[in-house]
Amino acid sequence: MVGGGQGAFIGGVHRIAARLDGQYALVAGALSSDPTRAAASAAELGLARSYDDYRQMAAREARRKDGIQAVAIVTPNHMHAGPAIEFLKRGIHVICDKPLTATMAEAKRLAKVAEASKALFILTHNYTGYPLIRQARAMIAAGDLGALRLVQVEYAQDWLTEAVASKQADWRTDPSRSGLGGALGDIGTHAWNLAAFVTGMEPEALAADLSSFVPGRALDDNAHVMLRYPGGAKGMLWASQVAPGNENGLRLRVYGAKGGLEWEQENPNRLWFTPFGQPKRLLTRNGAGALPEAQRVSRVPPGHPEGYLEGFANIYTEAAQAIRAHEAGDARPEGVLFPGLSDGLSGMRFVAACVQSAKRNAAWVAP
Amino acid sequence: MVGGGQGAFIGGVHRIAARLDGQYALVAGALSSDPTRAAASAAELGLARSYDDYRQMAAREARRKDGIQAVAIVTPNHMHAGPAIEFLKRGIHVICDKPLTATMAEAKRLAKVAEASKALFILTHNYTGYPLIRQARAMIAAGDLGALRLVQVEYAQDWLTEAVASKQADWRTDPSRSGLGGALGDIGTHAWNLAAFVTGMEPEALAADLSSFVPGRALDDNAHVMLRYPGGAKGMLWASQVAPGNENGLRLRVYGAKGGLEWEQENPNRLWFTPFGQPKRLLTRNGAGALPEAQRVSRVPPGHPEGYLEGFANIYTEAAQAIRAHEAGDARPEGVLFPGLSDGLSGMRFVAACVQSAKRNAAWVAP
Amino acid sequence: MVGGGQGAFIGGVHRIAARLDGQYALVAGALSSDPTRAAASAAELGLARSYDDYRQMAAREARRKDGIQAVAIVTPNHMHAGPAIEFLKRGIHVICDKPLTATMAEAKRLAKVAEASKALFILTHNYTGYPLIRQARAMIAAGDLGALRLVQVEYAQDWLTEAVASKQADWRTDPSRSGLGGALGDIGTHAWNLAAFVTGMEPEALAADLSSFVPGRALDDNAHVMLRYPGGAKGMLWASQVAPGNENGLRLRVYGAKGGLEWEQENPNRLWFTPFGQPKRLLTRNGAGALPEAQRVSRVPPGHPEGYLEGFANIYTEAAQAIRAHEAGDARPEGVLFPGLSDGLSGMRFVAACVQSAKRNAAWVAP
Amino acid sequence: MVGGGQGAFIGGVHRIAARLDGQYALVAGALSSDPTRAAASAAELGLARSYDDYRQMAAREARRKDGIQAVAIVTPNHMHAGPAIEFLKRGIHVICDKPLTATMAEAKRLAKVAEASKALFILTHNYTGYPLIRQARAMIAAGDLGALRLVQVEYAQDWLTEAVASKQADWRTDPSRSGLGGALGDIGTHAWNLAAFVTGMEPEALAADLSSFVPGRALDDNAHVMLRYPGGAKGMLWASQVAPGNENGLRLRVYGAKGGLEWEQENPNRLWFTPFGQPKRLLTRNGAGALPEAQRVSRVPPGHPEGYLEGFANIYTEAAQAIRAHEAGDARPEGVLFPGLSDGLSGMRFVAACVQSAKRNAAWVAP
Repeated sequence: MVGGGQGAFIGGVHRIAARLDGQYALVAGALSSDPTRAAASAAELGLARSYDDYRQMAAREARRKDGIQAVAIVTPNHMHAGPAIEFLKRGIHVICDKPLTATMAEAKRLAKVAEASKALFILTHNYTGYPLIRQARAMIAAGDLGALRLVQVEYAQDWLTEAVASKQADWRTDPSRSGLGGALGDIGTHAWNLAAFVTGMEPEALAADLSSFVPGRALDDNAHVMLRYPGGAKGMLWASQVAPGNENGLRLRVYGAKGGLEWEQENPNRLWFTPFGQPKRLLTRNGAGALPEAQRVSRVPPGHPEGYLEGFANIYTEAAQAIRAHEAGDARPEGVLFPGLSDGLSGMRFVAACVQSAKRNAAWVAP
Repeated sequence: MVGGGQGAFIGGVHRIAARLDGQYALVAGALSSDPTRAAASAAELGLARSYDDYRQMAAREARRKDGIQAVAIVTPNHMHAGPAIEFLKRGIHVICDKPLTATMAEAKRLAKVAEASKALFILTHNYTGYPLIRQARAMIAAGDLGALRLVQVEYAQDWLTEAVASKQADWRTDPSRSGLGGALGDIGTHAWNLAAFVTGMEPEALAADLSSFVPGRALDDNAHVMLRYPGGAKGMLWASQVAPGNENGLRLRVYGAKGGLEWEQENPNRLWFTPFGQPKRLLTRNGAGALPEAQRVSRVPPGHPEGYLEGFANIYTEAAQAIRAHEAGDARPEGVLFPGLSDGLSGMRFVAACVQSAKRNAAWVAP
Repeated sequence: MVGGGQGAFIGGVHRIAARLDGQYALVAGALSSDPTRAAASAAELGLARSYDDYRQMAAREARRKDGIQAVAIVTPNHMHAGPAIEFLKRGIHVICDKPLTATMAEAKRLAKVAEASKALFILTHNYTGYPLIRQARAMIAAGDLGALRLVQVEYAQDWLTEAVASKQADWRTDPSRSGLGGALGDIGTHAWNLAAFVTGMEPEALAADLSSFVPGRALDDNAHVMLRYPGGAKGMLWASQVAPGNENGLRLRVYGAKGGLEWEQENPNRLWFTPFGQPKRLLTRNGAGALPEAQRVSRVPPGHPEGYLEGFANIYTEAAQAIRAHEAGDARPEGVLFPGLSDGLSGMRFVAACVQSAKRNAAWVAP
Repeated sequence: MVGGGQGAFIGGVHRIAARLDGQYALVAGALSSDPTRAAASAAELGLARSYDDYRQMAAREARRKDGIQAVAIVTPNHMHAGPAIEFLKRGIHVICDKPLTATMAEAKRLAKVAEASKALFILTHNYTGYPLIRQARAMIAAGDLGALRLVQVEYAQDWLTEAVASKQADWRTDPSRSGLGGALGDIGTHAWNLAAFVTGMEPEALAADLSSFVPGRALDDNAHVMLRYPGGAKGMLWASQVAPGNENGLRLRVYGAKGGLEWEQENPNRLWFTPFGQPKRLLTRNGAGALPEAQRVSRVPPGHPEGYLEGFANIYTEAAQAIRAHEAGDARPEGVLFPGLSDGLSGMRFVAACVQSAKRNAAWVAP
């Protein structure tokens, strides 16, 4: 693991996600850019091998016979590209937190390396790991909604309603560490990715109006975006970190000529399906009507809720299956799905297009 | 009553709304543009006086000593201005269904007459009659949310998901009877009005993307709109009649620097209030925390749901109180509220601005 | 109307319910046992004829050519039997609030008169007027749930959590005016009646544990009851007025060998139906899957909520249809349904059986 | 681990729960009573040491220097006591699935051994591991509800609505493997335990009506129980496996003189709190108002749902903390909570009392 030392948030989530299905052992890390903190964090976690920085780690692990097979990168955005490139170059698989990078230039450099590498690149857009998101994707692919017309997606939070000083808030509102996007990069990319994953399509144009409501904030804390898809479907995307009463309000609604689907992250074990003209149906994770695509990433019976960590773990476990097959020279097992480089690049284009559109008074821009 | 004969929908709603609090008696009508149907409809309702058309009705009722004090106009949009002008000219109060008219030209003519008339003009944007909408308005006016930042409003339906032939669908999708807007005029104006009523502010610019998803439909059946308010607040408005699984999904969320409010029309007896940093609170109609502004338009204790007809009746009953005071030469009683001419004109400007914006590729337009 | 003067609650509800569909005109009343208040109340309501007491009213109205056809009795429980008997004896139809009477002796006297009368007796167990309750009843009668096994019904309120002094609370907690039952009579009878109406069956035995949690309260404020039905179905009934957070929490769940139904009064426009082994379906009032039995007592399209007053009005309107047919010597129109004498007697037996069971330490008692 | 081989359900849950926080390594097992299946299961899981039966395992592990510190027992009910006794005798900590045993005789034998053992005994009543259940318990202990009056608890499922033949269903409906209780033992004990855990009190008497609705079923599939607590509080407990539309409907509502709490297992990240006379508040896991007792067993921020596995893992992790302290001779760390022997014995008394009460026609019985 790179990053995720004391005081970090997402590193702990990655560790649980990796551990949950017993597919990974954490043995080495460069847990902090501060070597003292890195060592202390490693000791706390009982890591066998602690490094002062990711370059040292990549170099030495690559030389060991028992070196790591994969690395998790859980640093702030501007520290994704560097380590990812180092490990990919050495053929070590990379599991990287989103967004891909802080800048498009970094993204392009990383993409070049990733494409040339024999190692896999996995991006933890974790919400795609929820079983009912897999169900929604499969239903749409099967035509259950008919031709898609509308995609209404939003991710609303409230934790940045006021100016806050904290390790978590600081880098997310700092352009030099977060990149061009504030709410856009932090949660807007999740909404963007989720909509694409479920619908199987990406907008060809978007028009964005960005705001920074809290005085002194350098990056957007609210994004209003209209979407146009090839073929005529339309959408709206709303990302906000200043909407009091919303914790992690990621919600997706998709409507087609034959039906509609509605889902909310905060209660992810429910999916509403309305075949047009019929009563609304409540599909539950692993319940009646569950498709194989959803069941394969679900662990317990319906009515016993699975949550955020299980969804996150699904990305890790799918990655493990892909890595095993990859190393064995086998085809990827049927059904294995995880976000990767192209999703990351798409997210970067989304942020850039929104920023560009906003500068041009919400003109339509191709992402 | 003008309009509301056999086969009509909204006329019956107006009749119940008028009757509910015992403030009106229905005694005369020109219930249909077809004189035979008008007479048959009047007989069915036991009306004392039935007229062939609204001109006849206005002229004769104005001459009677016991002539009507007020008229309800419940015709399709293009038939609002004509009768409204006739009755207003004669000093008969007008209670008119929304939107104000089908065209801006009609709206301006009507406005001129209404301003000159000694009679009142009431527009039945009925959702403003819900007690918890009054509560929300009062809370915002009192500063409970702090400075407003975000207005997310939507009105989603699904009944026009496919091409339908019915009296109700026909005129709503016909430009010559409905005006420039389809979903925009029919339900978008409700969303627009509700947001304005609750927040006390109107956008200074909007950018709209309109669609007609059903082949052959002449008017929009889906509208995506971004909003900019004076002072920097932002908003999104979504109106759709092609979203399967939505019956009358009018939802309003308002967020400010100090808190948030969330409300849904389909379960109107609940209002969510989150003071930032505190647990979400569920305010119920007439329950703990109910303000006088809400209690005065509520009839039964909390937990006994009031619905659409009660909210509609509140407009009628408020109008009756205003009419009585007006005729007595008294000031309007404190707290009496109903939408009127300015709301109607605002709605017309909203539709026109959306259509203009859409034609200019969703450019920003002042409504 | 008898009762319902100034300061009363349920009288106003009856007046709105009678008015809502335009089937009744209120012309006469003995609105209070205090003649001065009766007169003042009548003046306020614009009643043509006000009486000092119900005996005077019954006698004089019966003699008038234009005398009332029906009377609404909206007094406290101990004042139901007296007026009901007076009017029924004179052939005037009676619409009486529940429970039937305060004592079983009164109930029996009233029953004898009602059975002998040529007039109709209607008991306003208003919750049976909700469209989706009609839907549930029709679905169960049609066998959609298979053989019934379980009836879980509850009515939870919180307004008597503490000792309160008010006109409404006083008589409800006073045995001389309320009868044997506190919460039992006030809301337990509603739960009992609703379960019977929907399932079409009544328990053959019950075991009840009653409590009075508030010191000094003479009647029960909480009732726990187990139910046994002929044929082996079982049930639980909970009625409470001391459950903080519950306003009018009347909830009914019925389960059979083939499926389940779930409904809550506070959001009465939704009915959950689960055919065993299939996803839960959300049936809405007048929405997809609505049966004729529900549609005939519904006024507006799905998604526009109807509430407590509309359900109450349905009882009045059904009664009006029955009265008209009755007076014309016709058969009752198909589908017309309202609670009457037998429901009232059943409610009385329910209260008496609960009290008797509770005295015998929750022994099984036949109601 | 004892039990949990191929085809088992709860074993897999225990393994994930043990692994989630990285506090346990699974190294040895007697995974099936069938030695071939035991070996195959162990190989599949990569276990270092597989045993033919639990006696062999207990004996040999106790002799090893690197023998297991704790064993998880995840067999059907009738196979709890045997292994638990063997391991406890040898000073190996036992983490045992619920209910305690199949029979009271076994329970007493086990209790004697457990009390004499220097090892700990942990019973996985996993629902007590939910953060908001800890919150509810702490709030009640702090007096936020005032004196408790009412405990309404239920656990409704539907998977046994029809006769099913499966490994999971077979032993649960077989008295020789499940014990006296069907639904009672399987889920009723969870409801019983949860109510006791949250309220801090146990009933002094209960009256139970048991049913077996599915023909040929030897054990109860539905239990209706009334509860009486010392001091006058009352309760109802409903456990059912034949209620179509319920997956794992464990719901707890507790009401006191000053307020109420309501919680549902299927959406466990929400807790409703109503201080009497104030609006209902929605408390979320780790959200505003979260108490330290809840936060210490929560991993991720509010709005990111934790579920069944996390709650289960909390029991394991709490046990690990207790075991460490125990082995170090230290006091148990503050706040560490898990169900144990006394909870298991209470559950056994609950089942026995219900069965006895049911045989005596629902007479009151002390559990």
